[in-house]
Amino acid sequence: MPSYTAPTKDLQFVLHDVLKTSESSIPGYSDLDRDFTAAVLEEAGKITSEVLAPLNVVGDKEGCTLENGVVRVPTGFKEAFDQVREGGWTGLDMPEEFGGQNMPYVLGTAVGEMFSASNQAFTMYQGLTHGAASAILAHGTQEQKETYLPNMVSCEWTGTMNLTEPHCGTDLGMMRTKAEPQDDGSYKVSGQKIFISAGEHEMSDNIIHLVLAKIPGGPEGIKGVSLFIVPKFIVNDDGTVGARNGVSCGAIEEKMGIHGNSTCVMNYDEATGYLLGDMHKGMRAMFTMMNEARIGVGMQGLSAADAAYQNAVIYANDRLQGRAVTGAENPEGPADPLIVHPDIRRSLMDQKSFIEAARAFILWSSQLIDQAHRAEDADADGLISLMTPVVKGFLTDEGYDMTVKAQQIFGGHGYIEEHGMSQFTRDARIAMIYEGANGVQALDLVGRKLAQDGGKHVMAFFALVKDFCSENKDVEGMEDFVEPLKVASKHLQTAGMFFMQNGMKDPNAALSGSNDFMHMMGHVCLGLMWGRMAKASLEALANGTSDAAFHETKLATGRYYMARRLPATAMHLARIETGAETVMALAADQF
Amino acid sequence: MPSYTAPTKDLQFVLHDVLKTSESSIPGYSDLDRDFTAAVLEEAGKITSEVLAPLNVVGDKEGCTLENGVVRVPTGFKEAFDQVREGGWTGLDMPEEFGGQNMPYVLGTAVGEMFSASNQAFTMYQGLTHGAASAILAHGTQEQKETYLPNMVSCEWTGTMNLTEPHCGTDLGMMRTKAEPQDDGSYKVSGQKIFISAGEHEMSDNIIHLVLAKIPGGPEGIKGVSLFIVPKFIVNDDGTVGARNGVSCGAIEEKMGIHGNSTCVMNYDEATGYLLGDMHKGMRAMFTMMNEARIGVGMQGLSAADAAYQNAVIYANDRLQGRAVTGAENPEGPADPLIVHPDIRRSLMDQKSFIEAARAFILWSSQLIDQAHRAEDADADGLISLMTPVVKGFLTDEGYDMTVKAQQIFGGHGYIEEHGMSQFTRDARIAMIYEGANGVQALDLVGRKLAQDGGKHVMAFFALVKDFCSENKDVEGMEDFVEPLKVASKHLQTAGMFFMQNGMKDPNAALSGSNDFMHMMGHVCLGLMWGRMAKASLEALANGTSDAAFHETKLATGRYYMARRLPATAMHLARIETGAETVMALAADQF
Repeated sequence: MPSYTAPTKDLQFVLHDVLKTSESSIPGYSDLDRDFTAAVLEEAGKITSEVLAPLNVVGDKEGCTLENGVVRVPTGFKEAFDQVREGGWTGLDMPEEFGGQNMPYVLGTAVGEMFSASNQAFTMYQGLTHGAASAILAHGTQEQKETYLPNMVSCEWTGTMNLTEPHCGTDLGMMRTKAEPQDDGSYKVSGQKIFISAGEHEMSDNIIHLVLAKIPGGPEGIKGVSLFIVPKFIVNDDGTVGARNGVSCGAIEEKMGIHGNSTCVMNYDEATGYLLGDMHKGMRAMFTMMNEARIGVGMQGLSAADAAYQNAVIYANDRLQGRAVTGAENPEGPADPLIVHPDIRRSLMDQKSFIEAARAFILWSSQLIDQAHRAEDADADGLISLMTPVVKGFLTDEGYDMTVKAQQIFGGHGYIEEHGMSQFTRDARIAMIYEGANGVQALDLVGRKLAQDGGKHVMAFFALVKDFCSENKDVEGMEDFVEPLKVASKHLQTAGMFFMQNGMKDPNAALSGSNDFMHMMGHVCLGLMWGRMAKASLEALANGTSDAAFHETKLATGRYYMARRLPATAMHLARIETGAETVMALAADQF
Repeated sequence: MPSYTAPTKDLQFVLHDVLKTSESSIPGYSDLDRDFTAAVLEEAGKITSEVLAPLNVVGDKEGCTLENGVVRVPTGFKEAFDQVREGGWTGLDMPEEFGGQNMPYVLGTAVGEMFSASNQAFTMYQGLTHGAASAILAHGTQEQKETYLPNMVSCEWTGTMNLTEPHCGTDLGMMRTKAEPQDDGSYKVSGQKIFISAGEHEMSDNIIHLVLAKIPGGPEGIKGVSLFIVPKFIVNDDGTVGARNGVSCGAIEEKMGIHGNSTCVMNYDEATGYLLGDMHKGMRAMFTMMNEARIGVGMQGLSAADAAYQNAVIYANDRLQGRAVTGAENPEGPADPLIVHPDIRRSLMDQKSFIEAARAFILWSSQLIDQAHRAEDADADGLISLMTPVVKGFLTDEGYDMTVKAQQIFGGHGYIEEHGMSQFTRDARIAMIYEGANGVQALDLVGRKLAQDGGKHVMAFFALVKDFCSENKDVEGMEDFVEPLKVASKHLQTAGMFFMQNGMKDPNAALSGSNDFMHMMGHVCLGLMWGRMAKASLEALANGTSDAAFHETKLATGRYYMARRLPATAMHLARIETGAETVMALAADQF
């Protein structure tokens, strides 16, 4: 069975040595000193590695079952959910007035990485609840907040997001679910939603569904979509759980992975719903949480990669197979461990250098969210809005590839289910799809975000990279980082220029390169993270740190990324510069 | 449910327009005229698309079960196997004296692609039999051939290959299975083998296991390994099936995919075995079939990619979602089909341009095998030996990625099992692992094949590419192909030079780049294939072909590959040229 060790030391390094959270002026950050975050992360590490990780394989094997409308979750999930609730893990970054702990989002993200890594399917139950609660927090009336939030923050009630219908996912303007207004101000919601994660189960006393639907007579398409609160059980005036509402689970999907999460077909049959936010502004209400939701999914790419990598390292050290080409390293044994072989190293270094930079990238992004929300910094808001599709698309594409690499190290033992390596890839696969498939992320980045506010945010990003390079170009030890980052950043700017020059007369010329641009920008972001981490490690070493080995390892890992992974930007640029011609050459019937 | 259309037209194009099989002097090739191969391919297309493809999902869902030592295969498999046998598909390229049809290997490969694409798990039953029969054909005594081959060629008896043990896969020198010599010249084989595909089932009257084992007292390690024939039922002197032998299936593995094939733990308990080939030369006996077996697995990468791609194209044309950025293309409908979107095109073109070139590459490789064996051409033998790890490693890595891309086009519908897209990726995943994991292929290529016979074969390959470029540099229409191929080939040569200059003093410097070199060479091979296909299509168009659309599509697809995929060689070269320094920087405990 796979194991999971919480990466608390590395999280601490990013929070304190790189992001220097407790020195930040963002409201709430002064509380985030080393001792405090260490205590939180150690506790989170404990519950995730000891309670959630052992249930990961159980969830995969047993899956969820639907019998007579009741969904059974895998053995042990309910008890674990109780422990998570009792530990207060569900409302870490939620307001105190609703029972949360009002911690910055960055700490919630650090904790969230461990939850996702140890058990992605399980963590989705609380993740979806967090998303739904955030929507109510942002758009609900005071009464709605008081009615739903205390129980959602504690996860006594869980939440869901209902967007997709059988015939539409990305293009929600075509949705058919209807909400008929009633005299009492409520609505009757009818229709079918699919792919609803955590849609039905018995781990909580109530399930608060957020449902997108159209009010008859409203505007056509996406502009006529509104958001509704549709509880599984109507909440009585005294706050207790009342009558069953007209919503039920019609089926559970059989899927490639995340078997421990109940992915439901939800049928709404004149279910009572309450408008959340403004009429016909449902998409906007959904989108206000989108940055956070998408960063949460990007995090799953990192989480899956780390969980898989940790087990690959153990296997590569244990499994004896072949001899080092430079001479036996385990001469007493029948063979050397796999880790002596250069190609195994190459794979492990790919994984390690991705994971550590992705961790920094996610935490930096979370810090930007805090800066945007807590410090009301519009520039930070613009920057994170630009980077969100990169976090989501690049980290889940790469994260998935890393799970495949980790699985490959096990050879045939990675293909059978016994070692759990197959599950990491099967679970990680969904992150490339949900919360906007990665093609949609790339479209969002190139088709919308680049030009947003007159291109201000992408210019700010380029300036940020440039400033980092200028500041550090003469710092000893930084040459392995600054030069490659400069080159990669130049590639990215050249691609941006290409889009500007060609995208106006032919939008396809830009969009044909959207996937490459997203990956390119992802590499530049991780390159920047490696630059910042290298700087922090060089400083720690110069200051006579007691943990020189950690920082030496960090620098060596970073050098690998800069030398071996970052040069991918040249390839992406070459592809982008070919424009749309070869991409769009065929008629639909020529495929 | 996914569908499968046999690519007979494209196979015909490669066989006749590109490879010009019937004009070849290779013995047997003169029979391969257009009408003959068309008849064979059409028939194979029929049974694969109509009989095997519909069973693919069934096999995945039901899997194989072990009850009281008996393995049950999925519903319909036995009847389909009967049809395959009756159709004479199992001995296409086997000698007539044992009931085969003595067709060239290239035709067997063309047929094999369709079998694998329609149902990989099913096709493995006959594929393993073919491999075992080839070993007996190459190394068996006349008596052994007469005893086993007629029934194996017809698949009345099936075969298996038993190499892996729990503690060793790649490093077979450590194996523990023993073969004790008996007075009558036979052996008693005892030990456990794992991951034995088609190890036990009731679709055939007997199963002929080929088992690697050590004869006590022989040389240490890999040099003391011998190969044995161990039939499930002892064959009586009159050729009938006799007593049950001491071999049994201990368990069936739960695995990520190919559920329809029974992957068995096989226990040998003083089972009667017969030495096949020379004592202690078991590895050599296995390796003589390795080229063919590995090309067969490379073909699975192509097959899976094509099966997945075909369904992605159908979905992309059917699914209405969003509007073309250049204006509605389906203004009457609620949305445009997915295929209007540039990023969907990019993905489909990646797939299509890979599949068609991979098909040509596999068939060209098969032609080289025929040239080596049928025409006893040592140069062809050297060239295919060089390219085998590329066929296996590159095509299965890429093939897998293509199934992931095809799945991605389905969005959430690709993640649920309903559409069968998840199965294509789960099945394709094994091809990167078995018959030598792809890291071993890269090691074989860089650590052994490049320098083989003084580097003669790689020089021959470079010369072949160079000659093609020289011959076609002034041919109108070829400029989009010749220039990029020249650049990519130059990258490959530069990488080869780097290995030569650095590998001697530090083998790790070469092996750290082995995976990149394998991929680079794969791209150059596919680039060469696109060059040859473009040439053929330009000629067809110049000759006033009646199917101009086919050839125009071919050229456009090729241009995409040259413009968008081939430039990856520069990235691989950049990585290779960083040597081993960053790859090997960490100690094992620093990971």
